[in-house]
Amino acid sequence: MPEQSPFDLPEGDPFGPHTLPYGVFSTADAPDLRRLGVRYGRHVLDLAALPDALPGTVPAPHAALLTAASLNPLLAAGRPVWQAVHAAVRAALTDPAHRTAVAPLLRPLDDVTLHLPFEVADYVDFYSSEHHATNVGRIFRPDGAALPPNWKHLPIGYHGRAGTVVVSGTPVVRPHGQRKAPADPAPVFGPSTRLDIEAEVGFVVGTPSALHAPVGLDAFREHVFGVCLVNDWSARDIQAWEYVPLGPFLGKSFATSVSAWITPLDAFDASRTAPPARDVAPLPYLDDAAAEPGGLDLRIEVRLNGEVISRPPFAAMYWTAAQQLAHMTVNGASLRTGDLYASGTVSGPEPDQLGCLLELTQGKGPYLQDGDEITLTAWAPGPDGARIGLGEVTGRVLPAAELPAGRPA
Amino acid sequence: MPEQSPFDLPEGDPFGPHTLPYGVFSTADAPDLRRLGVRYGRHVLDLAALPDALPGTVPAPHAALLTAASLNPLLAAGRPVWQAVHAAVRAALTDPAHRTAVAPLLRPLDDVTLHLPFEVADYVDFYSSEHHATNVGRIFRPDGAALPPNWKHLPIGYHGRAGTVVVSGTPVVRPHGQRKAPADPAPVFGPSTRLDIEAEVGFVVGTPSALHAPVGLDAFREHVFGVCLVNDWSARDIQAWEYVPLGPFLGKSFATSVSAWITPLDAFDASRTAPPARDVAPLPYLDDAAAEPGGLDLRIEVRLNGEVISRPPFAAMYWTAAQQLAHMTVNGASLRTGDLYASGTVSGPEPDQLGCLLELTQGKGPYLQDGDEITLTAWAPGPDGARIGLGEVTGRVLPAAELPAGRPA
Repeated sequence: MPEQSPFDLPEGDPFGPHTLPYGVFSTADAPDLRRLGVRYGRHVLDLAALPDALPGTVPAPHAALLTAASLNPLLAAGRPVWQAVHAAVRAALTDPAHRTAVAPLLRPLDDVTLHLPFEVADYVDFYSSEHHATNVGRIFRPDGAALPPNWKHLPIGYHGRAGTVVVSGTPVVRPHGQRKAPADPAPVFGPSTRLDIEAEVGFVVGTPSALHAPVGLDAFREHVFGVCLVNDWSARDIQAWEYVPLGPFLGKSFATSVSAWITPLDAFDASRTAPPARDVAPLPYLDDAAAEPGGLDLRIEVRLNGEVISRPPFAAMYWTAAQQLAHMTVNGASLRTGDLYASGTVSGPEPDQLGCLLELTQGKGPYLQDGDEITLTAWAPGPDGARIGLGEVTGRVLPAAELPAGRPA
Repeated sequence: MPEQSPFDLPEGDPFGPHTLPYGVFSTADAPDLRRLGVRYGRHVLDLAALPDALPGTVPAPHAALLTAASLNPLLAAGRPVWQAVHAAVRAALTDPAHRTAVAPLLRPLDDVTLHLPFEVADYVDFYSSEHHATNVGRIFRPDGAALPPNWKHLPIGYHGRAGTVVVSGTPVVRPHGQRKAPADPAPVFGPSTRLDIEAEVGFVVGTPSALHAPVGLDAFREHVFGVCLVNDWSARDIQAWEYVPLGPFLGKSFATSVSAWITPLDAFDASRTAPPARDVAPLPYLDDAAAEPGGLDLRIEVRLNGEVISRPPFAAMYWTAAQQLAHMTVNGASLRTGDLYASGTVSGPEPDQLGCLLELTQGKGPYLQDGDEITLTAWAPGPDGARIGLGEVTGRVLPAAELPAGRPA
């Protein structure tokens, strides 16, 4: 079979000219040199080399941003720069006149190592699927109302651990912790026996905001650079014992996996969709009735050891990413470049649309076994029938670490 | 009155030769140039200039760490380097032979601007005073048990917003948010009417740790560089409405104030004290019965508009900072240089030892008014009758910001 040109993508490839997600890669000949790249089909475009290869396509003031070791300088540069760089990249990959110059800048995806694409500032996790919140409420609080009373008035969220956000492909070691079933007389300590996933969508902040200056619904696009997939690994036994009254902590903080690729928000213009009807009117700062549709028609697939176990529909989310951003800043909290916020587990109304094993097994398990591999993929409808892809998030469960000798455990 | 030599400190000064806390300052002639400094009495020693002024006192490989614009490079260098730099600073300030060389490096504290001394990586807030947790439980959940069932088994904690940690002196703008009293039919939006403080002690991580490698009780000193005061500003009305089930979020994330000075942990060797007796045996990874005493005899004062309203005793904390660190990492979560974790509100058993207005007023208020200024100070007993000081944390409440025109609110 002759080798296919990297410029010719198969029909329906979700990483075609309408997607162009950004990442950070290194190569075997220089493993310590991290470079920015754009994914195109099964290849990676070396962004740092683009300005020299095609003089004049990347505006000169922006070329330096592309030589960084993480996306943060580009994220901080703001939307007009994002758009200028995107236009240059798109021209480089789609204009046949550039092929000779650009071909040497394309490396097969299988030949590079992908890294965490940005330095995570603060990480916030929301809880914005009504289906998920209802299902979890029924399992965790069978005697109470499934949804807490605040749920339809605000997008509930909490801060997670930014320092343990890891890139897709990083193995996840089963965490130790305390757990206590209601019938147990006292908590026990050991490896989690209820290790779960949460299939989520993440939003990456580029443009920072000032303290005391809330970011309204209409400023969402000015601040959010792009979108990724998130697997918010969750140890349900640790979480259940610790989370009252101050929320999840060690049940989540051991690892949160994100895509190696950040798809620009603007790539989803044709994927926008109206969120579900709100049966409680939101307060004005959250009222998006007059705004552009805030939902995104992302179709997620969850694979366990290669087999699809769920297809959560992101279009079913009750609270949108713009509402989450408006809520997160309405108290005057500022945004920093690299802030990451995730949607919360994406679950739809059907039994094959649930975003975590807790829901998929109705709280009964089985949960993840050592060696299990979980992979999330997603795409959204783009212009002219194209598919807009999110980078996959994959991770394999490794057995619990042996605790160091000499430590009590 | 003749000007006193900066080397001669008044009796009992908490910033004498046994304290030597680190910070970051700038001067009016170069307001954008941030430099490391060490506080000595009412003066600041210019650390970047020390190696040249006293050749040979700071080991050559460490001199470059002192020219940074934040403490992070020094924090990352590890405890042997902290000790070497400390020895050099102490010699510079206390050896009379050095006075001529060192005097030009000392600037009056009132002539400099102090900045956030380190870049905060992750911020975690604990809840480790039994008195505080009991008091708050009685106020928030009058019909339930005051302490949640997990409280004596683990130091409850949660992640806060690192991006809104501000240095002492930064004004705090009253936050907007949703609130709903139980009798209200629906939430309302507006400036918080129950703005509160939380007097806490913060611990700053220097040496990072690897993912999957818990930091045991005995490694506390290798990782924690120093101690500061923290005011965890809290909007009780926003918090009460939002915090079930995932914990505090916007009720806290608008601002967290920290000292401009980080006092080295090693300065508190003579301040160690046994924590209160544990009436529930901790699991082995938290069992400090055989370890060195984990409590710190810090005496805090809380001033409202200059008047002392409380004297919380840090020695009364149930869970120690070493236990908090062991718990925070027992699931394999890694530490980064610049991680900050706070003790939770410090309250003692007496009515004049409570660390927040919620407790001081038994939930009835009054809370903070616009224009109110809150100042936290603290010291601990040091060697030979000396006092070891923490940098003060002060902040004034400003009226709620006007929301930008054109934004629905």
